[in-house]
Amino acid sequence: MRHSPGHGGNLAWAADVAGCPASAILDFSASISPLGPPKSILEAITSQLGNLRHYPDPNYGELRLALSHFHQLPPEWILPGNGSAELLTLAGKELAQFAATVLMTPAFGDYYRALVACDAKVLEFSLMSPELKPLLSTQNSRHYKGSLKEYRTQELGLIINNPHNPTGRLFSRSEILPYLEEFALVVVDEAFMDFLFPQEEESLIGMVQEYPNLVILRSLTKFYSLPGLRLGYAIAHPERLSKWQLWRDPWPVNTLAVAAAIAALGDREFQQQTWAWLPPTRNELFQGLAKIPGLQPRQGAANFLLVESQHSCSQLQQKLLQQHQILIRDCLSFPELGDRFFRVAVRSSSDNQRLLEALTQELRVRS
Amino acid sequence: MRHSPGHGGNLAWAADVAGCPASAILDFSASISPLGPPKSILEAITSQLGNLRHYPDPNYGELRLALSHFHQLPPEWILPGNGSAELLTLAGKELAQFAATVLMTPAFGDYYRALVACDAKVLEFSLMSPELKPLLSTQNSRHYKGSLKEYRTQELGLIINNPHNPTGRLFSRSEILPYLEEFALVVVDEAFMDFLFPQEEESLIGMVQEYPNLVILRSLTKFYSLPGLRLGYAIAHPERLSKWQLWRDPWPVNTLAVAAAIAALGDREFQQQTWAWLPPTRNELFQGLAKIPGLQPRQGAANFLLVESQHSCSQLQQKLLQQHQILIRDCLSFPELGDRFFRVAVRSSSDNQRLLEALTQELRVRS
Repeated sequence: MRHSPGHGGNLAWAADVAGCPASAILDFSASISPLGPPKSILEAITSQLGNLRHYPDPNYGELRLALSHFHQLPPEWILPGNGSAELLTLAGKELAQFAATVLMTPAFGDYYRALVACDAKVLEFSLMSPELKPLLSTQNSRHYKGSLKEYRTQELGLIINNPHNPTGRLFSRSEILPYLEEFALVVVDEAFMDFLFPQEEESLIGMVQEYPNLVILRSLTKFYSLPGLRLGYAIAHPERLSKWQLWRDPWPVNTLAVAAAIAALGDREFQQQTWAWLPPTRNELFQGLAKIPGLQPRQGAANFLLVESQHSCSQLQQKLLQQHQILIRDCLSFPELGDRFFRVAVRSSSDNQRLLEALTQELRVRS
Repeated sequence: MRHSPGHGGNLAWAADVAGCPASAILDFSASISPLGPPKSILEAITSQLGNLRHYPDPNYGELRLALSHFHQLPPEWILPGNGSAELLTLAGKELAQFAATVLMTPAFGDYYRALVACDAKVLEFSLMSPELKPLLSTQNSRHYKGSLKEYRTQELGLIINNPHNPTGRLFSRSEILPYLEEFALVVVDEAFMDFLFPQEEESLIGMVQEYPNLVILRSLTKFYSLPGLRLGYAIAHPERLSKWQLWRDPWPVNTLAVAAAIAALGDREFQQQTWAWLPPTRNELFQGLAKIPGLQPRQGAANFLLVESQHSCSQLQQKLLQQHQILIRDCLSFPELGDRFFRVAVRSSSDNQRLLEALTQELRVRS
């Protein structure tokens, strides 16, 4: 078996293991909404095919204006990118200027990539281990453990993922705000924040104009089911964003993604539909997983669940692929989680049921 | 009047000056083929809308294979990117490791952006001035002028644009090869090379396996009329390309661009059509320009012509926009060319005729 990929959604790899076409894989590994992409977006894309013969507006004025209305922020505080991953690379270059950058682990693998690419030093603090006081359970630097003591926090960057992937944990604004007072730069990756009801979300977007050391990364990929299109944006001080524009090429976002983003932001019906769908469906999946002997799901705020298992998850992953053409996300790329955890996206009730049945069958065979 | 943009194809700016919708502008400023995008590409894009819910294959295996067949090179020698501009940014990071990088001026503005973004030092050598021996008219380093003497060429990078933009000049392989023997790294931007008949092109792709210090950048933007889609690729030693992949995000090319690229490479009919169209149409435009008093076009190998004018070209640009809704590329962003040059794309015969008539009218009014 080829080594499993470090990210969900690698269907080419999965199809190879399962011995079936990629289109036959039921993918729980990528945390993408099963409801989209909405028709409004596909129509917007199709309507722009005739404009592919023109360069995009390098200022992305129309898209920035749409984002500006959506977030109630001036357009110059928002920079669209070719997926939030592109903007993370620019954030990494920025973070490399500091003595080190603190990551809360288990951390999304692309954070390491973006930091290492610019020779940034990484300090890891665990959210999992009971022995280590997690960074975000403390309110001041006296409680930091490990090598963080070597630095003053004013020399450090910090990446926070909220809701956190892969644990699904949601940090409150009040938990994060003290770090904005302390750290030289705080990058908050809110790639999954839009899955929360507006009255329950904990986004820092409303505070960005008060903190010039705050960068927020957002994605339209997960909520609108568009990982193939590459569409994200950064929210930060206009001076910082102007600098980032000089670090990258002039047209990172293509014309079709621009049209899709504008349509997405305007599709209030799809947004309502998603907010109505997620909590009960996630709860149903959680309850189903909790009933399977040997599995222990964790409560999560986003559209995925982290599950602890008494059995090897990479073996389980392989069985699910070969016997059921179902792909789950192993956690081998997160050293603290290793082979005893896996992550699954919340999909439709019927897909979730197929997963639960397959898991039940495979774990019964084992025991 | 707002300051003119440093790149062609900025229709938002042009529409503002002309006081008309962007769609009404006849754009000669962007060097994009008027023949495309071919139907095969638009169909390929539409067929992939259902796959936007999946991440692209991070290895871009299928696209690399198509490029591999097209160029008769192993796939690992080819790296797709979000337009060749994205790959230029990575090349800039590579070039920043050397003492300096030589640019032949007038040089495409994005070369400076990519180099300055990584604090690379730039040395400029003019292709225009008769006093300076142009870099590419010499066969060895004895003839270098200016500050280049301070460096050994083994410490230097070099960017060559072939055919050269904005002059249209085509360098032969034998002119470039000596630089591959001398310079630490040679980046050859062949964004317009595909406009030449296969038997007349001077691409270095066939030599890349002999020179680990050679990087070739290619674009599918101009030939297939897809600047809105962002699609290019680099050809270089696999070790270098693997390193570049760690410098950027995992999915820079979106699913629709992948499908478009594969369709484009396979559309031999469109390629033949373009090669049949360009030389006579370019010649007709050249002859028409040469007949207009005060204008002196230069012969060029690509799908654009550089034109010297006895009158202010920025004033001419403004008149053409306001009176004719025609956009030409001024050369103010190229210091050596300044206000006495403009660049025009070769468009359809009837569009070219409209340009010639507008130019004739505006220059008659002036004299």
